[in-house]
Formats: sequence, C-alpha cells, structure tokens
Amino acid sequence: MNPRAVILLSGGLDSATVLAIAREQGFRCYCLSFDYGQRHSAELAAAARVAAAQCAAEHRVARIDIGALGGSALTDTRIEVPVDGVGAGIPVTYVPARNTIMLSYALGWAEVLGAQDIFVGVNAVDYSGYPDCRPEYIAAFEQMANLATKVAVEGKPFHIRAPLINLGKAAIIAEGHRLGVDYALTVSCYQADLAGLACGVCDSCRLRHAGFAAATLPDPTRYRG
Amino acid sequence: MNPRAVILLSGGLDSATVLAIAREQGFRCYCLSFDYGQRHSAELAAAARVAAAQCAAEHRVARIDIGALGGSALTDTRIEVPVDGVGAGIPVTYVPARNTIMLSYALGWAEVLGAQDIFVGVNAVDYSGYPDCRPEYIAAFEQMANLATKVAVEGKPFHIRAPLINLGKAAIIAEGHRLGVDYALTVSCYQADLAGLACGVCDSCRLRHAGFAAATLPDPTRYRG
Repeated sequence: MNPRAVILLSGGLDSATVLAIAREQGFRCYCLSFDYGQRHSAELAAAARVAAAQCAAEHRVARIDIGALGGSALTDTRIEVPVDGVGAGIPVTYVPARNTIMLSYALGWAEVLGAQDIFVGVNAVDYSGYPDCRPEYIAAFEQMANLATKVAVEGKPFHIRAPLINLGKAAIIAEGHRLGVDYALTVSCYQADLAGLACGVCDSCRLRHAGFAAATLPDPTRYRG
Repeated sequence: MNPRAVILLSGGLDSATVLAIAREQGFRCYCLSFDYGQRHSAELAAAARVAAAQCAAEHRVARIDIGALGGSALTDTRIEVPVDGVGAGIPVTYVPARNTIMLSYALGWAEVLGAQDIFVGVNAVDYSGYPDCRPEYIAAFEQMANLATKVAVEGKPFHIRAPLINLGKAAIIAEGHRLGVDYALTVSCYQADLAGLACGVCDSCRLRHAGFAAATLPDPTRYRG
C-alpha cells in the first residue's frame, strides 16, 4: 500500500501543482482545505474540483476562525485589496500566522492518518514578502512538529514538503503542465466572483498571468468582463 | 500603557493560574479559548467566568475543527475516557497537534494585537505523557513563530511563556492561591456535566484533587453525586 500524505489544497494554481507532484511520488493524497472567511470562497469550489480531477483519496474542508483575528485584506473587509501592481515589502494580503495554523491542522490530521508527509505549496520566489513562505520557516515548522507529536516522538518523523519553494511561477506552471494539471479548474484571484471568474488586476492575477506568458503556455484563466 | 499578552485560557485550573501570573507581571491580558468539539464544553463557561473574575481586557472563543480530525477520547466519542487512574505513556485523551493549533491561533491574534507575549499553561510534570507539554517543544514553537511572522521578522520577537512547565499540581495551586485565584470558578474534569460538576474519577480530576491535598488547601471542586 502506498504511503499517505496530507496535501494543503487551496484551489489555486500552486497547490494543484503540489498535489500532482505528490501523486507522481506515489503518495495516497489526503487533501485539506480551509474555510477561513476568505473573500474569495470560489477557491473552495476550485479545491473540490482539483481534488476530484486528481483522484485524491479524500478531501476535507476545515472551518477555521482566522477571519475573527482580523488584520488582512483577505479576511478583513475594511482593508482594500491592492490592484495597482506588486509592491515591495510584506503585502496587506498577508494573513497573520495563516500558514502556521494550516500546517498545524495538517499535522493533526497526518498524525491521525498515520501519514508522515505534509505537502504545502509555499513559494519563496513570488511571495518573497511573506515570512512564512521561506525555507527557514518550513524547516523550523518541521523541527517543531517532530517535538510536538506522539508518533514523531515514537520514531516516525514528519517531513514538510514544499516542492515549489524555490520555483518561479513559470517553472511551477511548466511542471504542472508536464504532470497534466488542468489549470482551468483552479482559481488564484484574491477577489474572484462566486462563479470563479478572476479580476485580472490583483497581485495574484498578475503573477499568474505573467507565469503563463513566461512559460509560453496559453492562460486558461476565466476573467470577468 | 502596559504591554499586551495573549493568554490561552481553557477554563481549567492551570490556565487560570497562568492568567493570574501574567496579570501580576503587568500585562494587559487578551484571553483566547477554543470550542473544538470537546466533550466537556462546561470548560468554556468556566473560561468566561475566570476571564471576567480576573478583569481580562478581552476574551474570545475561536471555533476550531480539531474534532473533525478525530483520534482522541476528548473529541471522538467512540474512544472511552479512562477512569481507572493515571497510566504510563501517552494517554488516549491526547488530542493530535492540539497545543500547536492553539498556539498558532494565539500567534495570529498576538500579531494583530501587537502583543509579543503568549502565555500557555502547559505542564511537563503532571502531563509527562504529552509531547507538546515539554520545554523543548515550547522552545521549538517559539523559534518557528519568530520565523513565521511579519512583526518578528521586523525585529519584535515573540516569547512563548509557560510559567507552569516545571511545577507540580500542588505548586501550581499554591501559586494561584497566593495570587488570589478562585479555583471554584474553574473546571478540570474531562467529563464534567453541563453544570460544571466534576466526575471525580478521570485522570484530570485525580490529579487536581491530589494537588489540593498536597498543597494542604481545601478542594473547592464541585463533584457530582
């Protein structure tokens, strides 16, 4: 029987690629998505489509209260999503401790499933402003996880796999293309509408569109208007 | 203005003591409790009483989906709570990744609040079977937190404070007694009823009762039957 892995699946382009990579490596994939009061709930529908298309063993959506903590344009409707291009520094779309909370849930589910591998689509190239997308953060989380849990203490360590961490968007798209990922199923836009149509002007749309162009592949994204 | 701190408040004896310690140290205390599908929801009512009695600046309850991950007698009703005394090894009441998930939420809220201190009532003496109650785990979480977050990266590091970590139950009770904690407000029982009455026979009740005896203080716990 192939080993199990937990895959953090957002419904976006990056995590769809990560799922394909985990499958190619022979894992039975248990996909975990989060309903955290995000503005773009179309991504949860996209996550379900991606999990089904890639034959995941299971797809769960955990409802979490990050939105109640406030502090990000993605969950706090009083902060505007920027549409004027990617700026320097840590963006207002940063959600406090989001990756830490999501990886913590993945860790709990992995322990229950007997999975030792957790895959996450963090990326230090395009999201250089997010502290929790850096390799040193992933390494520190893995170290903490291996002190936190019963199974790790008993000799079955966890591995946090971040296969995209050093790839640019074009390289991610090229890898997913090779693995047969259908990017038309994914939603990256920070302000997608309920039908999953993208705005085309937020940071995430800009990065995605530029990635297809750089990979010299057609952009299958469905844009509004 | 006194600095802010986030206090993980369960409604039990330990975290009520931690809140009193944080107050004595001069922090404005923001208390965070979790509704995680625990069997003993009486503890959330206790947490609200404790926060009010100790004049917390705020008390929030975050609803989280740990129960959906399964694997513990505290959240999975198919696993029986043991009532035959404290055994060796990691108990079935262990909830996978619970402290990691709760500390992650506290980290997110601390970042939004501008708090650099997070207080948690973990204890390596009475809960020696829980890997996420050990000092090396707390140190690893702190290190991870300081790589995870915007404010830490910008030079305001977090401190995870676990002032009870090396204290036995009697010493915790003596410290809380000195600080004026009203332990009659707290609920420790793993299977308390809705009125907060304790069973008297689960591991948590046994440890608590023995603690009052060892501290030579009257046990104010309200027991059933």
